[in-house]
Amino acid sequence: MSRFGPRNLPYGVFSGDDGVRRVGVRLDDTVVDLSDVDELCRRPTLNPLMAAGPARWARLRRAAREHVVDAPRIPLRAVRLHLPFEVADYTDFYSSEQHARRVGQILRPDRAALPPSWRHLPIGYHGRSATVVVSGTPIPRPYGQRGAGDFGPTRRLDIEAEVGFVVGVPGDRIPTAAFADHVFGVVLVNDWSARDIQAFEYQPLGPFLGKSFATSVSPWVVPLAALATRPAALQEPEPVDYLRPAGPGFDIRLAVEWNGTQVASPPYAQMYWTAAQQLAHLTVNGARVRTGDLYASGTVSGSRRDQAGSFLELTWNGTEPVTLADGSRRGFLLDGDTVTIHGVAAGADGADIGLGSVSGTVVGQSLFEAADTP
Amino acid sequence: MSRFGPRNLPYGVFSGDDGVRRVGVRLDDTVVDLSDVDELCRRPTLNPLMAAGPARWARLRRAAREHVVDAPRIPLRAVRLHLPFEVADYTDFYSSEQHARRVGQILRPDRAALPPSWRHLPIGYHGRSATVVVSGTPIPRPYGQRGAGDFGPTRRLDIEAEVGFVVGVPGDRIPTAAFADHVFGVVLVNDWSARDIQAFEYQPLGPFLGKSFATSVSPWVVPLAALATRPAALQEPEPVDYLRPAGPGFDIRLAVEWNGTQVASPPYAQMYWTAAQQLAHLTVNGARVRTGDLYASGTVSGSRRDQAGSFLELTWNGTEPVTLADGSRRGFLLDGDTVTIHGVAAGADGADIGLGSVSGTVVGQSLFEAADTP
Repeated sequence: MSRFGPRNLPYGVFSGDDGVRRVGVRLDDTVVDLSDVDELCRRPTLNPLMAAGPARWARLRRAAREHVVDAPRIPLRAVRLHLPFEVADYTDFYSSEQHARRVGQILRPDRAALPPSWRHLPIGYHGRSATVVVSGTPIPRPYGQRGAGDFGPTRRLDIEAEVGFVVGVPGDRIPTAAFADHVFGVVLVNDWSARDIQAFEYQPLGPFLGKSFATSVSPWVVPLAALATRPAALQEPEPVDYLRPAGPGFDIRLAVEWNGTQVASPPYAQMYWTAAQQLAHLTVNGARVRTGDLYASGTVSGSRRDQAGSFLELTWNGTEPVTLADGSRRGFLLDGDTVTIHGVAAGADGADIGLGSVSGTVVGQSLFEAADTP
Repeated sequence: MSRFGPRNLPYGVFSGDDGVRRVGVRLDDTVVDLSDVDELCRRPTLNPLMAAGPARWARLRRAAREHVVDAPRIPLRAVRLHLPFEVADYTDFYSSEQHARRVGQILRPDRAALPPSWRHLPIGYHGRSATVVVSGTPIPRPYGQRGAGDFGPTRRLDIEAEVGFVVGVPGDRIPTAAFADHVFGVVLVNDWSARDIQAFEYQPLGPFLGKSFATSVSPWVVPLAALATRPAALQEPEPVDYLRPAGPGFDIRLAVEWNGTQVASPPYAQMYWTAAQQLAHLTVNGARVRTGDLYASGTVSGSRRDQAGSFLELTWNGTEPVTLADGSRRGFLLDGDTVTIHGVAAGADGADIGLGSVSGTVVGQSLFEAADTP
């Protein structure tokens, strides 16, 4: 049974031969144009629809379900998929305890694995919204300082498999209970990371160039209404008031493919902090979210090593390479490597639904070679 | 002699009784409307003009100088000044050695005052572009976790006096020598900071809610062409290639007023990393800057304590309060306090020019009191 049946109907922005961008839904391996269903779908991004709010979203979803029964279908291979929304602010969290613990062990072995505030608030930081790109966009290997005086292409290019939440309705001081009044839907995120650049630069202000070169998102935004909810993970100690109740968890299963070999299966259901808590935290100080804000879960890593959402963890900082189907071994990404993250979720109507995939291929650059090589 | 004479002519966005926003220049204590001089000035933000590039900027500046001789002048008090540009990504650096050293001594007394990479690259982080506001916007005291389980209004509300650079022309991998091809002009920045919230949250991903509630900018963007350049500070060790040549320094003198008492005079000329180096660093990994990107110098602090651009330094984390003109003493900001940062610079034509001021008043909030008090 298709994971893109009428119970899913994720939204995307596509164009055909005329190059005009408009909003459609994915049905099986086709796209159904929604331009004639709602005038907000005759726009080049999802932002106007996302800004319109939950009542409009519900109405459109009902109308789309009826529409797709008889509507013309355009094969996916005949369209181009675009970045589905214009990104306002991009925020990335750090809400998998297994990820935070492993990264702490690897990068800061002399200190406690979890930072002092980790169980009290969802730690996060702001990323670069300009470099959020749609799945399929090539990922040039970034240059930077890998150590004192050591400039060149990163030698430790990594991924972070994450789930992203897309804000539709602006707001500030958003209680966890109002999560679904503001968040439009869910995408898959690969927050590409250059570990050597990041390690040299990140104290004390956090990741900067080690992250800001590219963040890929899947082209289909799955509406919250399509997803089943489940109880969130147990939290100890109990969080302070503004982080309660925790809000829903989601049973989203990721699968990470490295050149076609599945190397990891990160389970979102094991995340410590919920998306509702992340949004409440993000806005509790008065900061405003806008239509198009993207906030990502943080690397999704489960308790088993083969559930890790980064190669830093999976290969233990490159010291324990994985073997791909062609027999080659990898610690970090080589030029030409392709990473595809797939996602499947428990759907609101019972059956599993697809989140699609986010993919990117690493390309080498010689732009700086002349300056870089003596 | 006026610091806003025809040698300065900073750009801003204003509206009169009709509420229509348009671009003008400041001349003495008046605004001169440029709507009839260039159609790019009939827009609600500076972004279209900033995107048009240096040749257009130079042409408009020449035309504006001629125009203001006979043009009608509107008193400043008769207009409303708006956020002059739509902010794309907001980045904040940390490029005053004196500031970094003092903050290190205060917050991390057990470690080296300067982080390991500090003299090798301009450390920076991404901030929240949604909460950049124009001078005069009230600053609600932010709430957050001041420690484990300790939620409430910040008790250590601080300022950071900075100089901001506004990007006009998009680009990536921008050499230091191309600085003036991309940067449109300069504003004053106050990066309000909640030190208790920041201290609890910032490891390992950097400042987040301790900064993201408000960043104020001055309403007038002084074009680069109006500023004199000067040699940058000496850098030891010599930076890697992409950070050379250092590019111009600027003789910008800030003055910080706390409720009308001048408490500090931070000298931008003492900054270690230049704005050209910051832009080169920001983009060397392939990250793209867009029209409307704002990047700030980092807190401007000179070698003397009364040249510090933050109250954290000035009052040594509140332990050595300053005395204001009314005899009251302050460690950090109280509700009702007003901070105004003024700026003056050596002008390209010799005489000093004004950068105007950025001001904000702290307002208390009771929004969370019911939940906050037991």
